[in-house]
Amino acid sequence: MINFETLFKITYGLYIVCSGDKNKGNGFISNTVFQVSSEPVWFAACCNKNNYTAELISKTGAFSISVLEENSSAETVGKFGYKSGRELDKMAGMQVQYGDTGVPIVLNDSIAYLEFRLVRTVDVGTHLMFIGELINAEIIDDSKDPLTYQYYRQVRKGLSPKNAPTYIDQSKLEKKTVNPLSKKYKCSSCGYVYDEATESIKFDDLPDDWICPVCGTDKSDFIEIQQS
Amino acid sequence: MINFETLFKITYGLYIVCSGDKNKGNGFISNTVFQVSSEPVWFAACCNKNNYTAELISKTGAFSISVLEENSSAETVGKFGYKSGRELDKMAGMQVQYGDTGVPIVLNDSIAYLEFRLVRTVDVGTHLMFIGELINAEIIDDSKDPLTYQYYRQVRKGLSPKNAPTYIDQSKLEKKTVNPLSKKYKCSSCGYVYDEATESIKFDDLPDDWICPVCGTDKSDFIEIQQS
Repeated sequence: MINFETLFKITYGLYIVCSGDKNKGNGFISNTVFQVSSEPVWFAACCNKNNYTAELISKTGAFSISVLEENSSAETVGKFGYKSGRELDKMAGMQVQYGDTGVPIVLNDSIAYLEFRLVRTVDVGTHLMFIGELINAEIIDDSKDPLTYQYYRQVRKGLSPKNAPTYIDQSKLEKKTVNPLSKKYKCSSCGYVYDEATESIKFDDLPDDWICPVCGTDKSDFIEIQQS
Repeated sequence: MINFETLFKITYGLYIVCSGDKNKGNGFISNTVFQVSSEPVWFAACCNKNNYTAELISKTGAFSISVLEENSSAETVGKFGYKSGRELDKMAGMQVQYGDTGVPIVLNDSIAYLEFRLVRTVDVGTHLMFIGELINAEIIDDSKDPLTYQYYRQVRKGLSPKNAPTYIDQSKLEKKTVNPLSKKYKCSSCGYVYDEATESIKFDDLPDDWICPVCGTDKSDFIEIQQS
């Protein structure tokens, strides 16, 4: 028997994985970034097969990883976590540096970065696992803590997007009882739920320029959840 | 240029990975355990090629993962993290349950466990990456936090053992200045350093039954570090 709540006991960080070049770069937020070998230093990063960045990593043969800080802005998380690079240029307006391989490295909200040359690609079902050899690594800000997936879930109320290896269909999780008088509103971009039962302000009373605390989406793009 | 301190910005949990059967089981502590695919749920776990557990996973075609809790005992961490199953029966005296595949699952100091059927093995240099499909998962204790590698390093002063993917030769890290009047003593088992400069008691004044706070090794097995 699989209790899907168990999956939340696994510890992850949150990272921006980038590839491409100066003309066309892209990146996405990944929690499955980890060292797999010590000498030489090899890392693995998992990427949904549909992700535009997967295409760029395969083409360029290189990728970068930026380690997000605990209080990363909703704008950065929203852009790289819940939008597709096929529809917008994610590098526009960002603080970007280019590595020895030419890949973009995002510096916004990042405490460290690493650059890799691709050594192997492993097919793991819904995802590709890119294995890379570390060629550059530097700390940007040693005073801040890295953003962890647990902190993102518990403190910032974020959910895994559909393309993440750790995405869980909400119907597989235990249902919590609800107060029938309070309403819930869901962000159409990232799935964050504004639950009036646990907030001090009704959704309608929030200012018009209020944005999703997780991904920065406008208040007008929230949808009321029908509770039966 | 690689600044090796950057590697400490990557977030990991700590787990006991087990395999084998009732007659001969073994396990080791891993920090590189992570979900790589969402549907079906696939996980990867890295294991040094020399580890006895690697042999058992290849033979049995299955493995289990126990999620260690933040305050795991030094005995459990010491036994599974710094000793070899070729020399001792690690399951002796432990609270063990057997999964559907017959693999042992360690319950001591664990908040959750997961059981996997091996689907693929990937060679990643010094390590093997075992990819498994989740067949069972349960929470043991929902009230405790998982042990993270950062907590283990910063609060419990633990180091990666030589066989870990995240092992770093200490000579690659920046040297800190030392107080020539204080002495340092190193645990011969796990490498933990008792540094008098940051402790309130001199090493010689510690009681004889004092043990390594990380792995439970006896005080008599500490060696003074010669500082030049």
